[in-house]
Amino acid sequence: MTNRQIIIADLPTDALTPDHFKMIETEMPQPGEGELLLRVILMSIDAANRSWLRGATYRAAVTAGDAMPTYAVCEVVTSNSPKIAAGDIVAAEAVWADHVVAKAHKVQKLPRVETLSHLMSVYGIAGKTAFHGLMSIGRPMAGETVLVSAAAGSVGGYVGQIAKALGCRVVGIAGGPDKCQWVIDQFGFDACLDYHEKGLGKALATACPDGVDIYFDNVGGKVLETALNVMNERGRVVCCGAISQYDTDSPFGPRNLPGAIVVKRLKMEGFIVTDFAKDDAKCLRAMGHWVSTGQIKVTEDIVDGLENAPHALIGLLAGDNKGKRMVRVAADPR
Amino acid sequence: MTNRQIIIADLPTDALTPDHFKMIETEMPQPGEGELLLRVILMSIDAANRSWLRGATYRAAVTAGDAMPTYAVCEVVTSNSPKIAAGDIVAAEAVWADHVVAKAHKVQKLPRVETLSHLMSVYGIAGKTAFHGLMSIGRPMAGETVLVSAAAGSVGGYVGQIAKALGCRVVGIAGGPDKCQWVIDQFGFDACLDYHEKGLGKALATACPDGVDIYFDNVGGKVLETALNVMNERGRVVCCGAISQYDTDSPFGPRNLPGAIVVKRLKMEGFIVTDFAKDDAKCLRAMGHWVSTGQIKVTEDIVDGLENAPHALIGLLAGDNKGKRMVRVAADPR
Repeated sequence: MTNRQIIIADLPTDALTPDHFKMIETEMPQPGEGELLLRVILMSIDAANRSWLRGATYRAAVTAGDAMPTYAVCEVVTSNSPKIAAGDIVAAEAVWADHVVAKAHKVQKLPRVETLSHLMSVYGIAGKTAFHGLMSIGRPMAGETVLVSAAAGSVGGYVGQIAKALGCRVVGIAGGPDKCQWVIDQFGFDACLDYHEKGLGKALATACPDGVDIYFDNVGGKVLETALNVMNERGRVVCCGAISQYDTDSPFGPRNLPGAIVVKRLKMEGFIVTDFAKDDAKCLRAMGHWVSTGQIKVTEDIVDGLENAPHALIGLLAGDNKGKRMVRVAADPR
Repeated sequence: MTNRQIIIADLPTDALTPDHFKMIETEMPQPGEGELLLRVILMSIDAANRSWLRGATYRAAVTAGDAMPTYAVCEVVTSNSPKIAAGDIVAAEAVWADHVVAKAHKVQKLPRVETLSHLMSVYGIAGKTAFHGLMSIGRPMAGETVLVSAAAGSVGGYVGQIAKALGCRVVGIAGGPDKCQWVIDQFGFDACLDYHEKGLGKALATACPDGVDIYFDNVGGKVLETALNVMNERGRVVCCGAISQYDTDSPFGPRNLPGAIVVKRLKMEGFIVTDFAKDDAKCLRAMGHWVSTGQIKVTEDIVDGLENAPHALIGLLAGDNKGKRMVRVAADPR
């Protein structure tokens, strides 16, 4: 029995291409004491994958010859731990492969849901990030206006749909007219503005006639600067990410910071999803409710086949996904 | 009987100069029904004065031909209101002038304190701003490290002294070695760094070996950028002012915003002192206690003469004051 694995053939120095990856076959890994053999079912494809190839971040750098790391939903094939049984579905830090070995205490048992891929999207990191950031930092109230950047991304769509469910006016920002229209059609945003167009400030003022009470910021940079200008007094800026600043050597500092914070008495606050783990059950119950009522539509961008993982990542970096992108390595075993 | 008044001759587009002001003489204003004629005794000189000349903030913009607004402690000369008597000492929104007319319901009767100027400093806006910002947004805890910019300014000294009284390590930032030494000697800061010196980042790291939990920011700009680099996870940035950005046409945006907020899960929040008016009594009681124990020293920087108000403000913007700056227009009548 062999095991397919995708390794980094060469570290990219510029744009990522398929040549930077190589599929190899190895022997099937054997789990030791306290370990599990996992079958990889779904692999999360994230912009962060690319950043791991640039050097150490919150994880060690990935170098040539390493298998590409990934967050994955897996089925337990063999368990050498009393706490996990064969057949369990778990979340694990895995690699791009058919099978991996993991320590039992490092995986997380996942609940049974009807559609397994939802554990990667609405009930996964994307949905939890949207819920916790919006609810715990943004604290939306019916009648308020919520602005969301990267609105077509994996988190932004949930932020807008939750805010709509709560009675807010919701305006998105995304790249390109197609994505903007899709955000409106798919998620029911009241408006969505293309940041590639000139005059974003004026467009925002028009789309948000009562100003903005909550800005859910996934991008930072100039879009943040522009958004701060339309914030209302005592508005809240949920600092979720700064994707516009990740791939540059000359970061842009919003010139109205901290001035706008002082004058408008804004609150800006950052978080990561695990800060609110204590509220995860509440999040999953609420998201499940809104999925059941149709107020949250789950959009997933599933690429089939381990061998297509490099293309899935390269395409994501070019912005060709709509909704949460993942690679399906194996069918749902249930 | 005439009344001297200082008006804005020309709105500044860059650095403020004496030519932007003009002293004029007008007729003595006459109070109508429900109004008061006030003799201005003390005028508060604040960096915020400069920001009012930049456009509408939390108050309407001040334009050419307007008298310069100011917060003032005044004596009531004539009262056309049953609630206020001639001879009362009141706080009022006034202008740079010998006399002003104010609506009786808009002034605030002040308590009798031994030293009238303390109503402008420790028991006035400076002391309240320090107390409310530090306590309600910063939320200091014994053992934490508090960093304060404009530490020799009217607010910074109180922030540091309150934090010391609560058991925090307190590090200041000020302009020039003399001011820094004075902050340490006068207010008991553990350290005070000169932002004119190169290597502020390294000096901060050395002065704050456990990082910074609360940064009370009065200045914005590059000092804010540097301070963000030494903040601890879940640190709080109290956004009180951005004095480095008020007197320029080319504002500097901290390039690590919002990145540092996201990665360290910081909270940045702005406020103005009246947001916390409901806690004013608590503030005055606490400040009175610390003054009585000697834990808070009151330092005032009093400039005599209405005609010197422009120089007092221009000097303040250049950082030449130590402690709360005010202009004494008339002697304490008592």
